[in-house]
Amino acid sequence: MSRIVYVNGEYLPEEEATVSIFDRAFLMADGVYEVTSVLDGKLIDFDGHKARLERSLAELDMDKPEAFDDLLDIHRELVERNGIVEGMIYLQVSRGSAGDRDFVFPDPEIVKPTLVLFTQSKPGLADSPVAKTGIKVISIDDIRWGRRDIKTTQLLYPSMGKMMAKKAGADDAWLVEDGKVTEGTSNNAYIVKGGSIITRELSNDILHGITRAAVLRFAKEAQMKVEERSFTIEEAQDADEAFVTSASTFVMPVVEIDGAPIGEGTPGPVATRLREIYLEESRKAAI
Amino acid sequence: MSRIVYVNGEYLPEEEATVSIFDRAFLMADGVYEVTSVLDGKLIDFDGHKARLERSLAELDMDKPEAFDDLLDIHRELVERNGIVEGMIYLQVSRGSAGDRDFVFPDPEIVKPTLVLFTQSKPGLADSPVAKTGIKVISIDDIRWGRRDIKTTQLLYPSMGKMMAKKAGADDAWLVEDGKVTEGTSNNAYIVKGGSIITRELSNDILHGITRAAVLRFAKEAQMKVEERSFTIEEAQDADEAFVTSASTFVMPVVEIDGAPIGEGTPGPVATRLREIYLEESRKAAI
Repeated sequence: MSRIVYVNGEYLPEEEATVSIFDRAFLMADGVYEVTSVLDGKLIDFDGHKARLERSLAELDMDKPEAFDDLLDIHRELVERNGIVEGMIYLQVSRGSAGDRDFVFPDPEIVKPTLVLFTQSKPGLADSPVAKTGIKVISIDDIRWGRRDIKTTQLLYPSMGKMMAKKAGADDAWLVEDGKVTEGTSNNAYIVKGGSIITRELSNDILHGITRAAVLRFAKEAQMKVEERSFTIEEAQDADEAFVTSASTFVMPVVEIDGAPIGEGTPGPVATRLREIYLEESRKAAI
Repeated sequence: MSRIVYVNGEYLPEEEATVSIFDRAFLMADGVYEVTSVLDGKLIDFDGHKARLERSLAELDMDKPEAFDDLLDIHRELVERNGIVEGMIYLQVSRGSAGDRDFVFPDPEIVKPTLVLFTQSKPGLADSPVAKTGIKVISIDDIRWGRRDIKTTQLLYPSMGKMMAKKAGADDAWLVEDGKVTEGTSNNAYIVKGGSIITRELSNDILHGITRAAVLRFAKEAQMKVEERSFTIEEAQDADEAFVTSASTFVMPVVEIDGAPIGEGTPGPVATRLREIYLEESRKAAI
């Protein structure tokens, strides 16, 4: 059976889901996106993703899609139609197609945003075996644009970063700018040292992770110490633990950075505990 | 009559020209492009654009599209079918659609690149009235990614830059990094001072303009002095002339930068002469 996806008001088999070659996301990466996880057939942190989407759109002077207020229904309809128990829902809004290519934004009265959503079924997402062994990362230069707080589709470099990691026998890459880690290719980066959870402070340099916000809140509620500041790769290699967070990997232990094992080279107690809390609390709050 | 465009081997009316929502250019800006101008129904600097496309693809480990060796024929067919006398041909290659979204590149044995071309008719392109009065630019921070030498579709910031210029009552923006001008939003930037043509040296910081290479060659042949080095906005405001070059605007005088008139505030003799030479020589060499 074909996956059913959503394109501008229509539910379509994935093979029939297309956009114009003039769509501004296709021609000039003029689009923003969100990924919401599904556990037990319910949406994790939906409100957070919707709020961040609204912010991304506003930062780019992009109109909200007409169906903005129906996004929860659309997400649920896609979960239902595709029988998603565990997985993700990807959502993208672009500035639409003006029927030609122009650097100047089209008149929003005439050209409406393109809204696309599709599901990705990932049975076993929460009980991931990878979370039990942890991942290996390499460090690479962060040469992305300066507004990583806006969740745009300009993902070529993160994608190249994953390939560099793969070639190096690792799972992912941490990006380094001016000697400090910004974040992972598609996740926020953390270290744990002397009982403190350390992660870079929010700015235009990193994505304002929805999972990051939740995890830090849960950490504080659990009386863990949180320091929001940047750190170096050397400091990370010398840490007791390291991990990343994202909507689709939740809390994922990092056990090696540039070939150096972190702590015992196995997932540490803080990351493991935070993953448990995050999954437990998120399941409770899922809608 | 509908414009006829090219998508993966097919010539289609533009309304029917679509790509999958899973195309990597749509989802992650994993695409490169070229724009070739047409004068007198012939292609300007086609070989230069094709060579740069090949380089962009190689830099991104992206396969050449199957029709790579037929690109000249496809360009000519589109010129013919759409009766283009003056205008542009836009070409884009993306890493294709793997039928789902993943940061990891798809297997190139299985997933083939997407190739799209379309024409833009611009009667009067060479004899542009704007070239007679010149354009006004503003300066903005260059926050683009670090590999501007690869002509990728990550054009959101250049597009935002054009909008900032428009809002400021100007025509375009010059991008400034570490105090020096890198280039325009979609063109290379030049100043003329004491008889010297000054333009930033090639590096990963700027696009290696095909028109730039031709104009510098013509300038040297005409015994003009060329200095390849970066310059500041203050130096530009104090210059005798300023101009930009691109495939679609050729040589375009800049008469105002951040509100300050350049020279007499009208197109200068060097830019005017270079435009004439470029158009004359390009028409001769057009294929």
